[in-house]
Amino acid sequence: MKALIYQGPGKKALEDRPKPEITAPTDAIIRILKTTICGTDLHILKGDVPTCAPGRILGHEGVGVVESVGSAVTAFHPGDHVIVSCISSCGKCDYCRKGMYSHCVNGGWILGNTIDGTQAEYVRTPFADTSLYHIPAGADEEALVMLSDILPTGFECGVLNGKVQPGASVAIVGSGPIGLAALLTAQFYSPAEIIMIDFDGNRLEMAARFGATATINATDGKAVETAMALTGGRGVDTAIEAVGVPASFVTCEDIVAPGGIIANIGVHGVKVALHLERLWDRNIAITTRLVDTVTTPMLLKTVQSHKVDPQKLITHRFKLDHILDAYETFAHAAETHALKVIIEA
Amino acid sequence: MKALIYQGPGKKALEDRPKPEITAPTDAIIRILKTTICGTDLHILKGDVPTCAPGRILGHEGVGVVESVGSAVTAFHPGDHVIVSCISSCGKCDYCRKGMYSHCVNGGWILGNTIDGTQAEYVRTPFADTSLYHIPAGADEEALVMLSDILPTGFECGVLNGKVQPGASVAIVGSGPIGLAALLTAQFYSPAEIIMIDFDGNRLEMAARFGATATINATDGKAVETAMALTGGRGVDTAIEAVGVPASFVTCEDIVAPGGIIANIGVHGVKVALHLERLWDRNIAITTRLVDTVTTPMLLKTVQSHKVDPQKLITHRFKLDHILDAYETFAHAAETHALKVIIEA
Amino acid sequence: MKALIYQGPGKKALEDRPKPEITAPTDAIIRILKTTICGTDLHILKGDVPTCAPGRILGHEGVGVVESVGSAVTAFHPGDHVIVSCISSCGKCDYCRKGMYSHCVNGGWILGNTIDGTQAEYVRTPFADTSLYHIPAGADEEALVMLSDILPTGFECGVLNGKVQPGASVAIVGSGPIGLAALLTAQFYSPAEIIMIDFDGNRLEMAARFGATATINATDGKAVETAMALTGGRGVDTAIEAVGVPASFVTCEDIVAPGGIIANIGVHGVKVALHLERLWDRNIAITTRLVDTVTTPMLLKTVQSHKVDPQKLITHRFKLDHILDAYETFAHAAETHALKVIIEA
Amino acid sequence: MKALIYQGPGKKALEDRPKPEITAPTDAIIRILKTTICGTDLHILKGDVPTCAPGRILGHEGVGVVESVGSAVTAFHPGDHVIVSCISSCGKCDYCRKGMYSHCVNGGWILGNTIDGTQAEYVRTPFADTSLYHIPAGADEEALVMLSDILPTGFECGVLNGKVQPGASVAIVGSGPIGLAALLTAQFYSPAEIIMIDFDGNRLEMAARFGATATINATDGKAVETAMALTGGRGVDTAIEAVGVPASFVTCEDIVAPGGIIANIGVHGVKVALHLERLWDRNIAITTRLVDTVTTPMLLKTVQSHKVDPQKLITHRFKLDHILDAYETFAHAAETHALKVIIEA
Repeated sequence: MKALIYQGPGKKALEDRPKPEITAPTDAIIRILKTTICGTDLHILKGDVPTCAPGRILGHEGVGVVESVGSAVTAFHPGDHVIVSCISSCGKCDYCRKGMYSHCVNGGWILGNTIDGTQAEYVRTPFADTSLYHIPAGADEEALVMLSDILPTGFECGVLNGKVQPGASVAIVGSGPIGLAALLTAQFYSPAEIIMIDFDGNRLEMAARFGATATINATDGKAVETAMALTGGRGVDTAIEAVGVPASFVTCEDIVAPGGIIANIGVHGVKVALHLERLWDRNIAITTRLVDTVTTPMLLKTVQSHKVDPQKLITHRFKLDHILDAYETFAHAAETHALKVIIEA
Repeated sequence: MKALIYQGPGKKALEDRPKPEITAPTDAIIRILKTTICGTDLHILKGDVPTCAPGRILGHEGVGVVESVGSAVTAFHPGDHVIVSCISSCGKCDYCRKGMYSHCVNGGWILGNTIDGTQAEYVRTPFADTSLYHIPAGADEEALVMLSDILPTGFECGVLNGKVQPGASVAIVGSGPIGLAALLTAQFYSPAEIIMIDFDGNRLEMAARFGATATINATDGKAVETAMALTGGRGVDTAIEAVGVPASFVTCEDIVAPGGIIANIGVHGVKVALHLERLWDRNIAITTRLVDTVTTPMLLKTVQSHKVDPQKLITHRFKLDHILDAYETFAHAAETHALKVIIEA
Repeated sequence: MKALIYQGPGKKALEDRPKPEITAPTDAIIRILKTTICGTDLHILKGDVPTCAPGRILGHEGVGVVESVGSAVTAFHPGDHVIVSCISSCGKCDYCRKGMYSHCVNGGWILGNTIDGTQAEYVRTPFADTSLYHIPAGADEEALVMLSDILPTGFECGVLNGKVQPGASVAIVGSGPIGLAALLTAQFYSPAEIIMIDFDGNRLEMAARFGATATINATDGKAVETAMALTGGRGVDTAIEAVGVPASFVTCEDIVAPGGIIANIGVHGVKVALHLERLWDRNIAITTRLVDTVTTPMLLKTVQSHKVDPQKLITHRFKLDHILDAYETFAHAAETHALKVIIEA
Repeated sequence: MKALIYQGPGKKALEDRPKPEITAPTDAIIRILKTTICGTDLHILKGDVPTCAPGRILGHEGVGVVESVGSAVTAFHPGDHVIVSCISSCGKCDYCRKGMYSHCVNGGWILGNTIDGTQAEYVRTPFADTSLYHIPAGADEEALVMLSDILPTGFECGVLNGKVQPGASVAIVGSGPIGLAALLTAQFYSPAEIIMIDFDGNRLEMAARFGATATINATDGKAVETAMALTGGRGVDTAIEAVGVPASFVTCEDIVAPGGIIANIGVHGVKVALHLERLWDRNIAITTRLVDTVTTPMLLKTVQSHKVDPQKLITHRFKLDHILDAYETFAHAAETHALKVIIEA
């Protein structure tokens, strides 16, 4: 089968690989219908993810059809259409039983990382019963690719951790795909204002179309002042960090109101300065999280009932044969205006 | 009346001052029976608290007798024995109505800071109805001095924010009075282990007597390794920072388990390094808080029902005439083994 | 001034009464701009509310202008436009400090009950600082009459107690004004489905226009079967009782899913049958609540940011001179299709 | 092997049965070391549990040694010492993933009910990985029999649902084994008072020894008055129903304070009267629950750290050969003063 292979820092190729096989009774083999590329895939390609060895098939998102299942799989059968979760959850360990699937001692984020992933014609998914989700008949399967990772990530790490409330004020620092996923799902809770902050005018325009009540282009160096002015000097109840660099985290520190929350989504490569000399007495909380995908069933219901439309995040489509073009498009989002790119297998 | 006056950095004196008078209908005048000294008073004396001007009567803790009340005070009457809360709460502003008295726009921590405090024979307390608490007949009034500040601080900022749970593992970095207050109140929730970390062997001995299940003397530079070993390599569910310096905060970062909480109590003067490059995917929360004293009624019930004995924190007693000696004793805790010193007015 | 007087069971009249005066330092006198009639007023008129003595001016809702304030009132000044909350909160008692204003030992629901109310040209409001809310400049004041009682009641007792969640299923039994207020505010949380149940086709039509995803006319005696069918046999996550009779409460028992919540809003005059023989092992919760109006500031923000439009609840308008007509219209809602009627003073 | 067989209403016998065998890859066979009898077993014997057919081996509690495991079991191996949970959880269904194992669509309470149970030399446990718990080396295995059912039931249904808090007041109606389990675990949260109510003086004496701060013998018909007097007329924050009859539930309604919770543990056979005409405006919650045993790992830690001693609940011991005597002893608790009886297999 065709598969996108990580060949070491800076190198990738579409190669022929053997079709995967069941290796444990809890496995399933999924024929991929559609997959996508994540910012994390770009991190891997830069060599920033040491757990991912050269030779790996990348990809941890997608929808597909169950091809075969192991002997202990009871909830899925060949022919079922499924969402493949980016997190593999054994369902048995202490973390899984607490709903912290991201820290599953037998799984976690392994797809396209420590085991072969979804940017291929087929994928082997471990712990199928607790890592796949049934696609309802008649659903928009392409939109549901967004439920593999980006929508639950924005929702769990940003919106739920950030405790967005009706009437509240929210700022999202970073208007890329993940910030926009947080923007879309924050609206489940009817906050009074959602302020998007970014350097990219195009992405801010998209944010405005996706429901932001205000956008701040940070290129003038006055994002903090502007956000404070927009909130009457009080700051925001929830500040969501959706970039992963020190400056954007410090922006969150600067604009969070007393009693507020900074919900970090960004993947950080270096430490950040936590200004406890200003924050120690501000009654704030800071949260971090690797998506657990525990909210996938809930998100599926919100999609099916049209409370959110994840299609909005999809800007480009490619065939698997042209996945290298898809990577190019996704990697140069400033020029291509790409958010999420769909790859049809 | 006699009162302890802050005279500018490094200077204090016991002076004669006029007895305070009612200036607002919500005021009360309290004849102080017993007061105490807080670490914050030492900060003021170092010149670290710019809001506190020379000439100020220090002190924000104490029990006393109501001498007189303003026309709008309805819950207290002359002769009532009361706890004076370190936080003055107007009861009306948005923050007060949310239970965040520390950020009261009309009050907050003002006693012994922006208005005269309790280290005197009398004190004027604003917003009496919402800042004083009745002492039940027969209560140990000296013990209740601990309810002005230190016990709610340890409890609210450390234990409640840290969500201590039955069977959980807790580490408290800092075994001074505030760390010990967290230790005492953490036991309300029956954690399986409470590990105290400090450099001072005497304080760790006290911690062991107060209920710590393990103590770690950090002088060998191996506190993190030891704490990790004690928790089977998993780390603690709750790490309470009770010092206020970068190193102790980073210790908390190093020992918090995935899914755990770092609850900061310490007053920090400089920023700390937040290692998001390690913590971004650990599903942790970090909390800060200035004590709100919303739990004073709850704590009063726990004291009255003998669930906690705040007397344990009291090591020395002085008359108001000798308050300078009390300051000496408190300021040299390493030698005097002082925790909280009682000053009788 | 003109005022609507309860004259004993079955009797009411528009009478001349002296203008009220400040009697406590925490009082305010409000010139009423607009008020309305509540189902509870009809209960009083039936003689069902023994705390309300003949001679009482009715009404516990309204917006107006501050005419004068007592000496201890600091947050409001003559000329301020305000919402009068149906609940008077002293801000000092244990219940108020816990956010349970409805049980304020000095106030609670007293307006138009144990003290004179708002269906008059003027009203004296006790505890003004903690029982009035500023109307923002430019707001739709008529719509804000709905924030005195009906919107917070539907929201707090129904939606918040019922823990409505994104993607969840909700049923509201009773599509009168209070059920519709729950319907409007439930949408803050983006549930997948909101099923309205009533006997009145007109009200169900209104519910459909207000956002119900399904309506069930219970006249065929099959409401339970229909609701179960709509939820795939599972039942609803939240069942809101908005009538106040045994049959509608039992309907909630019959349709609540395992793990679900029955949130009671209805004012009940007799006991109901709780079928614990079926429910003891269903992991459900049942909640009751008299509105606390703690969410008034939050609701004000949702109205100002157009997340909810309470104007939808207003069907008729009258001058105070014709308040008896307003009562007629409101009391015969089945024929008049009245929801809330506005009375301009 | 020997096994206690339910032979239809009123009839039971110790019979010889074939040793159970693995029938699904997720099964385990456990050699029972110690089991016990539950009140529910007596209900079955009365014919009150229609799901349990004659011929069934009774028992849903116990500790034992893993004899063999199915091919998909990964967390347990032959020779492991384990607690058998009364609830079988598949770990995969929606309910299991929400922590509501009691409603597992593939399991739930099936042991000794719809499949053969633990009052035998061996038992087959389905879903072994998610329904068994490792016993730590050196633990008191007899005490851990209490973790199969009674301790999590008292804790989850009574204490957790009842939100017992430090300094709070708790009443437990029913001082039998399950009420006493609630009493033991309520103390994890340091309530100020725990009032036990029962008709049996002996059980109340035991309650006093187990930590009750007050006991009320209800035989004089004045339990409500006495409880109200003990709480200064305010009522209790948490009322736990641990009997399962209408009268004891109504007692809970009568003594719950505004804002309080009634947490039902009792198994009810008939409906109860819910006095909403008194309770609709009291801001209370009523909860029901079949134990989920999600807290078993937490409880195991509390036992291992000596925060609770479940041994206190064990009053008698028998060999499996004499299990009929054990039933006699347990069924006549008023005379025998039995709480939990241990049966050694």
